[in-house]
Amino acid sequence: MLAVYPGSFDPVTLGHLDIIERGCRLFEKVIVAVSKNPNKSPLFTAQQRMEQIQSCTHHLTNLEIDAFDTLTVHYAQQRQAQVLIRGLRVLSDFEYELQMAHTNASLCGSIETVFLATSNEYSFLSSSLVKEISQFGGSVTHLVPQNVAVELKKCFTKNP
Amino acid sequence: MLAVYPGSFDPVTLGHLDIIERGCRLFEKVIVAVSKNPNKSPLFTAQQRMEQIQSCTHHLTNLEIDAFDTLTVHYAQQRQAQVLIRGLRVLSDFEYELQMAHTNASLCGSIETVFLATSNEYSFLSSSLVKEISQFGGSVTHLVPQNVAVELKKCFTKNP
Amino acid sequence: MLAVYPGSFDPVTLGHLDIIERGCRLFEKVIVAVSKNPNKSPLFTAQQRMEQIQSCTHHLTNLEIDAFDTLTVHYAQQRQAQVLIRGLRVLSDFEYELQMAHTNASLCGSIETVFLATSNEYSFLSSSLVKEISQFGGSVTHLVPQNVAVELKKCFTKNP
Amino acid sequence: MLAVYPGSFDPVTLGHLDIIERGCRLFEKVIVAVSKNPNKSPLFTAQQRMEQIQSCTHHLTNLEIDAFDTLTVHYAQQRQAQVLIRGLRVLSDFEYELQMAHTNASLCGSIETVFLATSNEYSFLSSSLVKEISQFGGSVTHLVPQNVAVELKKCFTKNP
Amino acid sequence: MLAVYPGSFDPVTLGHLDIIERGCRLFEKVIVAVSKNPNKSPLFTAQQRMEQIQSCTHHLTNLEIDAFDTLTVHYAQQRQAQVLIRGLRVLSDFEYELQMAHTNASLCGSIETVFLATSNEYSFLSSSLVKEISQFGGSVTHLVPQNVAVELKKCFTKNP
Amino acid sequence: MLAVYPGSFDPVTLGHLDIIERGCRLFEKVIVAVSKNPNKSPLFTAQQRMEQIQSCTHHLTNLEIDAFDTLTVHYAQQRQAQVLIRGLRVLSDFEYELQMAHTNASLCGSIETVFLATSNEYSFLSSSLVKEISQFGGSVTHLVPQNVAVELKKCFTKNP
Repeated sequence: MLAVYPGSFDPVTLGHLDIIERGCRLFEKVIVAVSKNPNKSPLFTAQQRMEQIQSCTHHLTNLEIDAFDTLTVHYAQQRQAQVLIRGLRVLSDFEYELQMAHTNASLCGSIETVFLATSNEYSFLSSSLVKEISQFGGSVTHLVPQNVAVELKKCFTKNP
Repeated sequence: MLAVYPGSFDPVTLGHLDIIERGCRLFEKVIVAVSKNPNKSPLFTAQQRMEQIQSCTHHLTNLEIDAFDTLTVHYAQQRQAQVLIRGLRVLSDFEYELQMAHTNASLCGSIETVFLATSNEYSFLSSSLVKEISQFGGSVTHLVPQNVAVELKKCFTKNP
Repeated sequence: MLAVYPGSFDPVTLGHLDIIERGCRLFEKVIVAVSKNPNKSPLFTAQQRMEQIQSCTHHLTNLEIDAFDTLTVHYAQQRQAQVLIRGLRVLSDFEYELQMAHTNASLCGSIETVFLATSNEYSFLSSSLVKEISQFGGSVTHLVPQNVAVELKKCFTKNP
Repeated sequence: MLAVYPGSFDPVTLGHLDIIERGCRLFEKVIVAVSKNPNKSPLFTAQQRMEQIQSCTHHLTNLEIDAFDTLTVHYAQQRQAQVLIRGLRVLSDFEYELQMAHTNASLCGSIETVFLATSNEYSFLSSSLVKEISQFGGSVTHLVPQNVAVELKKCFTKNP
Repeated sequence: MLAVYPGSFDPVTLGHLDIIERGCRLFEKVIVAVSKNPNKSPLFTAQQRMEQIQSCTHHLTNLEIDAFDTLTVHYAQQRQAQVLIRGLRVLSDFEYELQMAHTNASLCGSIETVFLATSNEYSFLSSSLVKEISQFGGSVTHLVPQNVAVELKKCFTKNP
Repeated sequence: MLAVYPGSFDPVTLGHLDIIERGCRLFEKVIVAVSKNPNKSPLFTAQQRMEQIQSCTHHLTNLEIDAFDTLTVHYAQQRQAQVLIRGLRVLSDFEYELQMAHTNASLCGSIETVFLATSNEYSFLSSSLVKEISQFGGSVTHLVPQNVAVELKKCFTKNP
């Protein structure tokens, strides 16, 4: 089974990393797919986000990191993946994720969405929360991989 | 009973059409009222949205299509409607819609909000989802009336 | 339009009465249908519950009060009603009510479920809450019609 | 990967069957595990429930059907399964299921819970709803496998 | 400020203990009030539950432990408390707790309900979950105070 | 106990005022802290918002009004407050507020977040709703303090 774990990862958090590690135990190969959605203005470029994920996942041998700018389900088809992985943290996730799963099923019935519950300790964590704390000078070293914490600090020291 | 079904309809979906048809069976006359909210930047003009609805509702003889740029409840009063129709799909709808119903009741106690549950098969469907799929080249022919699918395609081929 | 407002009404509350009055303004005739569900052990008999509703709705001329012991949708069909009325108070209502609306639509597509939002001041109110407060000697005169408050007091003085 | 899909299945519905079929495509082997929870009073015995599932899953070659009366996570450990499968239909599912996933992770960190979204058309469906409709003489042939519909009818004709 | 923290505590969990400790830091005195609701069949008697709480709260000098069999709000009035403390874990808590807070405000406007969010690590934890795990022989030493774990084990070894 | 009640208050509503008054009864001193978040474009300047709150809280002697542009939890630490006050209206509040409470606890474990349920009559009320109604010429005199209603009218007459 080849699984795609799509997302913005702007930046990758310890919650994402938790899902990545568990996905790698479940499936033969996992592709973390960084979304280049032109409607969003990310803090980090797709290239930076890919490198951030790379830096903290050297221990995962069945992981590939890629970027995409199409519909998630089209990307998964093109990569011949059978599975989409999504993390569930909280209720508001749930409704959106269910909507996306039903939509993707209506677009491509053969790709299955598999949900993993984010570990309890990261259930309150999101990339936008991390950026907001970092922007205001708060510490995020307990929320993101160390390399990401460094880059966030650099980013908001230059552009406060 | 005269009922107003207000909304952005940017564009109208098969979920909206389902609510329109059921509203027309419940009430003597239904006005679909396209909102011209200056705070939003719609994909289609109010005129286009009205024509899109017109094109797929020829079979409904007790339907009028209009546009408005005031508070919904003021528009309903001006049209001497007694009822507002709203569709409920999912939980996040529910809270917002309940808030609007209570607000409208506080502004004009004589207008009643009536909720219809969107048919199960369209419960995951929203206009913004349709636009996102269409923008990335996905097929939306199972989600919107045929005339809308054509216009969406035209729209995103010109402005990709 | 003939509408059925089904429920346990064990006992009827001011929240139910609010929905009944608004239903009577919306539809030509409303039947309040007291459920005799053999799986439940009501505090009041169906006969008592019907009389309680009768006593506080003399002012509503297009209201009928009845009881039923079949599926709600079968009762509505038998009465040739086109509409089921349901009140929505809170989120947990919503999910159950949506489930029932979809189920009823799957059993009888021609009957439409119409939801009304319970007035804000009664949104925290339920029959079981009323019974619990009354059982422990609390005052419920602001939560139920006066005749029901009297009967609840009688009930829990006899069987404390 | 060996996956366990635990549940009451009292009785199995088309929603459960949907999850079973999709689980069988995702994992090498799936065990449907019928819970014999002594705190519940099921309509059908564990033996009957196992046979009901057997009868409608002959086409699935990597499926085993079993029963258990221990903690789900202990049963999964004993069977050397790495995965628990759970279906998500609606919001109220979500919170309970997340609670169980976190609890199971706290009891046995090596077993992963994987959630699949029940197909949209079965999102309103539950075993208890099926029993209630059947008890009141409603048709459930569109909600459960044919063999289950027959047994439900038999059951409620004998014990109305 | 005198605060009452009411509940069933059947049995007290580490989640409850977390709320008790934080309540004792916020208010001059906290009364943990064990509910003797005649409608429920608790596993432990009120006396046992009070002793269980006593055993794990010796370090809290501004804590009193009591039991009550009236309406919560009446008990608080009788004790001349100004505050009710309630823990919030998950969404389903929230709706019920909000309903109770509004009901209590309608019964006694001068008593304020104050909500504390249960620590993240205990957000999935409930007394009924603890009893279920314990009944089936699972370990609950990470979920309840040590004295409670011992009593649960004793309880379910005698009555399996 | 010194408590901080942080928020945008753009503008202050009767719902906020309800929380402020109840907070002042619970704690020795309350600081209403107006957020100057550079990521948001408020309708009123922080100075205006502070004056609006000042004008309607003369009767509260243990209240201070301030503004801040750092992380909420850092502001509270700097002011040596032990408590953050937050109002809970609806479900979508709940999830966000719980996330913030857990985040703040992870940043500064010694500051406690205390939630108060907004009075039922204001549970549908938000600053953005007030602005939208006012922008479209609707009356908001039942939703905000009188001085705020006047300023909103002035604001949207100048900039319609």
